[in-house]
Amino acid sequence: MADPSTCPPLTPSSIKGAYTKIQPYIHKTPLVTSRSLNAIASSRDPSAFLSDNPPPFDSAEPDVNDNVDAGQSSDALPRFRLYFKCENFQKIGAFKARGAFHAVTRLIEELGIDEVRRRGVVTHSSGNHAQALALAASTFAIPAYIVMPSISTTSKIAGTRLYTPNVIFSGSTSDEREAVVADVIKEKGAILVPPYDHPDIILGQGTVGLEMEEQLRELSGTGEQSMEGDGARFDAVITPIGGGGLLGGTATFFSSQPDTLVFGAEPSFQGADDGRRGLLQNKRIEHVKSLTIADGLRTPVGVLNWTIVADKSKVEGLYAVSEEEIKMTMRLVFERLKLVVEPSGCVPLAVVLFNTDFRHMVAERQRVSREKHGGADKAYWDVGAVFSGGNTTMKAIATLYGEGKGAKAEREAGTISVDGTKKVEDVAG
Amino acid sequence: MADPSTCPPLTPSSIKGAYTKIQPYIHKTPLVTSRSLNAIASSRDPSAFLSDNPPPFDSAEPDVNDNVDAGQSSDALPRFRLYFKCENFQKIGAFKARGAFHAVTRLIEELGIDEVRRRGVVTHSSGNHAQALALAASTFAIPAYIVMPSISTTSKIAGTRLYTPNVIFSGSTSDEREAVVADVIKEKGAILVPPYDHPDIILGQGTVGLEMEEQLRELSGTGEQSMEGDGARFDAVITPIGGGGLLGGTATFFSSQPDTLVFGAEPSFQGADDGRRGLLQNKRIEHVKSLTIADGLRTPVGVLNWTIVADKSKVEGLYAVSEEEIKMTMRLVFERLKLVVEPSGCVPLAVVLFNTDFRHMVAERQRVSREKHGGADKAYWDVGAVFSGGNTTMKAIATLYGEGKGAKAEREAGTISVDGTKKVEDVAG
Repeated sequence: MADPSTCPPLTPSSIKGAYTKIQPYIHKTPLVTSRSLNAIASSRDPSAFLSDNPPPFDSAEPDVNDNVDAGQSSDALPRFRLYFKCENFQKIGAFKARGAFHAVTRLIEELGIDEVRRRGVVTHSSGNHAQALALAASTFAIPAYIVMPSISTTSKIAGTRLYTPNVIFSGSTSDEREAVVADVIKEKGAILVPPYDHPDIILGQGTVGLEMEEQLRELSGTGEQSMEGDGARFDAVITPIGGGGLLGGTATFFSSQPDTLVFGAEPSFQGADDGRRGLLQNKRIEHVKSLTIADGLRTPVGVLNWTIVADKSKVEGLYAVSEEEIKMTMRLVFERLKLVVEPSGCVPLAVVLFNTDFRHMVAERQRVSREKHGGADKAYWDVGAVFSGGNTTMKAIATLYGEGKGAKAEREAGTISVDGTKKVEDVAG
Repeated sequence: MADPSTCPPLTPSSIKGAYTKIQPYIHKTPLVTSRSLNAIASSRDPSAFLSDNPPPFDSAEPDVNDNVDAGQSSDALPRFRLYFKCENFQKIGAFKARGAFHAVTRLIEELGIDEVRRRGVVTHSSGNHAQALALAASTFAIPAYIVMPSISTTSKIAGTRLYTPNVIFSGSTSDEREAVVADVIKEKGAILVPPYDHPDIILGQGTVGLEMEEQLRELSGTGEQSMEGDGARFDAVITPIGGGGLLGGTATFFSSQPDTLVFGAEPSFQGADDGRRGLLQNKRIEHVKSLTIADGLRTPVGVLNWTIVADKSKVEGLYAVSEEEIKMTMRLVFERLKLVVEPSGCVPLAVVLFNTDFRHMVAERQRVSREKHGGADKAYWDVGAVFSGGNTTMKAIATLYGEGKGAKAEREAGTISVDGTKKVEDVAG
């Protein structure tokens, strides 16, 4: 990886620079809106829309007068206009392609294509970063060595093998994986491209924020979803946080726009909310061992990423949701939006729909803002939520939502994860 | 319903007229392309990409020379560029909104809004047409009476109740349902809006073809998927056929363009391929009793629709696929495209991927065309496939793809359908 000391600073303009580099290689994924999701999110009980007898939309359609009437009561509802950034349609099915292409183009810039091709790149990952790096490297005919735990599921190994023949197996602990990576570096001179804890990765992922802002302006121009108040800007953007590359990059992009608050969303299962817990203890939590269905978010926040996440001027706060809330959200996304989003990618919307603290916070800010502007403030918060990836399978869905006895018992015992992996220890990326 | 004798003729220009009327009320759904699906469809064995160890894409990437080398051998592969019309993103989750809005706006035009409001509209359907008519009617504050078999699933009843309070239950046979409809007509003076067998419905559904053609031109302009040969036109368009409204409308739209062939796609399970069988016998088959997972395609082709389907100058042919082929296709759409498309909506792509007759026919036509043009013809067929709807549930997916013993046994015995309905008799729409 490029030496961090040679990297561009973590600023919005560096993200613009990263975007110029990676734009030819990535998809500009759509920013999707949905009136029914707006209504559901702005209703008193979003889970009611998952019942066999959901309420009619009329009753859920946000009515500005409701809030005005509710006045200062704590019963005021949060009002949302949602914008979904569909990175499930990104190359390899997740935002990770952005960071990987940025890391690889920066390496080429710094060392020259010949040296990078001679040495190759290496990483350890059983997830989306593995495929992303293999794709980015193969695009420039650079060898990619991917170290994967031998217990990885067949489909993930096969997915990575689509782009590189060099999949190398290791044990599943951090030490075992890192030993294999060290061997590859020693033997081949390969350059390590970590999944999240590096400026080039963070800047690459930050291009999600850049694109979202651009697309909000375009939408506003077409009147597709009418903007109120002072025009096209997000009141809030919320992304998943695992290692912290996506949240770090997005928060960096919006850091010069104090009116856009950036939030992170985590699963709470088995302590996977290490970010939120770290903020409470005022120090980064270094180890996570969770089998949350949001398998992309099982990692602890990275060292460099933590400096951004813990900076209140960049990240306004972190919120966590339960496994059941993630499942309910995934079902709404599937059945209402007709989109396949993996559990990790559903976590931000789960926070909007189900996290009571988040919803109270939004309602309260909206109340204060209305008072300040004598009721003339905009009635909704325009909230961007990042659907970070779509890499799940029919088999995983059947296990998560099926009534088969075996699957149900295993789920309850916490011994099976959404992708069928039986045992995972703080897997990266 | 408007008296057929007062309806516009079944021509492309009537479809343009229909589009002007319904455009304010429907979504212009996206036309989606996918390099990986192109490669899979153009490979020798598309099902290999569903194995735990799929081949790398390189081996599937269509290579023009392959075909030239294969020369006149019968081994030549068909080569596809696919365009998916995403009616799963349409209002109420299916193309049926188009026909329903056209039927209702035509009624208003003919009888005046006051009379239509006084009398209301009525239909019998347990499927997407029920919701579509209820939505279209409620948009103009017209009462909608929807007759549904009392065995309909809770979610479908609830879906229809979102838009109308007037859901009326009946027995599940045609006779029982029609008796209830007759009662409503007698009592309320309500106007019947049938699900497919009427010119206004056919013209409304035909706007799918109009939009696809427009979007292909736009795509071609941006160079998003490069057009070869004589520019932006479909070599073929393929839609599902149940009652025949969508296929009839689409074939009508392209009827003045002999270079674009229109095909229909059906499930073969338990005789649901009544269209194909009817063509062989040279007469419309009047009854179908199938529990195919493609539950929108369990109906026999309508009388008026049959006149279009049986007209070789409009519909080039019908092809059928098995339940397993539909399931494999739905998995590819879900896992590769990240889209939720209901089984009925996957049937056209299933024909492209798995129907041997269809694939041989395309390869043979491509060979002949190359010979005629001395090898200078375009290398691919540009094929539009309509993803007609996305109304399925997580529960249905878990039943279809799960390993739960009960579900599997019931599936094998053919006693359970994808939506959990236990018994269905030629349900319309």
